[in-house]
Amino acid sequence: MNWRLKLEYDGQAFCGWQRQLGDRTVQETLEVALASLFGGETIVAHGAGRTDSGVHALGQVASFRAERWREPARVRAGLNALLPPDVSVLDAQPAPDSFHARFSACGKTYRYLLLDRNERSPFWAGRAWQTCTPLDWAQVESGLARFVGQHDFTAFRGPHSEQRNPIRLIESATHRTLESGMHAIEFRGPGFLRYQVRIMVGTLIEVGLGKRAPEQISDALRGGTRADAGRTAFPDGLYLVEVRYPDAAEGAPGDPDASSDD
Amino acid sequence: MNWRLKLEYDGQAFCGWQRQLGDRTVQETLEVALASLFGGETIVAHGAGRTDSGVHALGQVASFRAERWREPARVRAGLNALLPPDVSVLDAQPAPDSFHARFSACGKTYRYLLLDRNERSPFWAGRAWQTCTPLDWAQVESGLARFVGQHDFTAFRGPHSEQRNPIRLIESATHRTLESGMHAIEFRGPGFLRYQVRIMVGTLIEVGLGKRAPEQISDALRGGTRADAGRTAFPDGLYLVEVRYPDAAEGAPGDPDASSDD
Repeated sequence: MNWRLKLEYDGQAFCGWQRQLGDRTVQETLEVALASLFGGETIVAHGAGRTDSGVHALGQVASFRAERWREPARVRAGLNALLPPDVSVLDAQPAPDSFHARFSACGKTYRYLLLDRNERSPFWAGRAWQTCTPLDWAQVESGLARFVGQHDFTAFRGPHSEQRNPIRLIESATHRTLESGMHAIEFRGPGFLRYQVRIMVGTLIEVGLGKRAPEQISDALRGGTRADAGRTAFPDGLYLVEVRYPDAAEGAPGDPDASSDD
Repeated sequence: MNWRLKLEYDGQAFCGWQRQLGDRTVQETLEVALASLFGGETIVAHGAGRTDSGVHALGQVASFRAERWREPARVRAGLNALLPPDVSVLDAQPAPDSFHARFSACGKTYRYLLLDRNERSPFWAGRAWQTCTPLDWAQVESGLARFVGQHDFTAFRGPHSEQRNPIRLIESATHRTLESGMHAIEFRGPGFLRYQVRIMVGTLIEVGLGKRAPEQISDALRGGTRADAGRTAFPDGLYLVEVRYPDAAEGAPGDPDASSDD
């Protein structure tokens, strides 16, 4: 049986999603719980987004196959009983055989939380990025709008990105002002390059600080190199909010290269 | 010199505001930092609200007197450098000589965060109270409206309340639905009895669960006893959001008995 899970996690104490020897990762933590729940089977979990160390998720999706059958409600409750407090399973459902959390995904939404105030916050350390110098949000919004559309994101990709094709589509890029100096920047698109969201946000912070003009984003998107974009923003403020799948043929595999690896 | 501070704290690792031997409290933590900042003077800090163990603050106000002078910006920055990460000083200003954080206060706002969903949250444990059975929010709102106005809150006070007069005024009582099953209940009034907000919220939860009719709140407010109200809600969801002072005569002492001790 093929399964689909929806997960929430606080990334602070995880070295990211992907299993790596000797590190505490979400994938391994989940696989240990799955093995225990399914009576010792070795189970491999695939995540829709391979979130980096310190990155959070409100709607990560994972898929896995298990020989034995368990009631869906028991899978959810059982996993939540086995998992540590910084991961929670929001939903567990049987999925079509062809469903793969990463390759079937057709869209994702990432949110970055920026706390724009002088005083450190007892509530948001590790869960938002704090800019101690006030940002010019009109400038940030002018820069943000330039990301919308299809562009060559070579300037906005990490150094070890495996993906061949640097062309990505940003369907929407929005900014919302929340309570007490908190700001949310949200990007929606079919897929993202490694570190793409964090480099876009790092560049926008530099625009908001007046270190860079919004126009430079447009320039960097016209065949620029990594040096034409800003620093990579810290993982603290990044959340994988949602992963979307084709409604009709939920299991139809998408373009593997178009899928995010951030 | 008399000083006024605005503080934010995560109450999870504190045994409340008030100093008590052998326990980690916000008052003592602040007083240790103040003594260090003012060169070893023994300084007593008075809090506007004596928040209980586990209760948070977004806008606690404290006052203290110090012999030596320090620049206000240095007081704020210096305290933030000395204080642990779960307390933050948002503002520090010299205050009129008659100003007393607790006795000068003329109003407070408390917020209670309720997470109404089935699955535990990696982000809100200890910072909101989770009801695993869905609440009927129309019933909660019908109950909530009954608290507005001046009433005898004998049924909604803790067993060791020092205050003589159980009459309190609730200026407003509101409910807002936030993201992903989070709800905020907010009470505004000149002052509250010990545990009053938590007993009001505990009673509203019972109304939302269908264990109690909204009308019973009106009955309990007409000279009821503690047995006529619901359980005391856990401290996890409670935030002291704001403390208000008279604009004109900021230092004019209010009625000590009308001030909150929750």
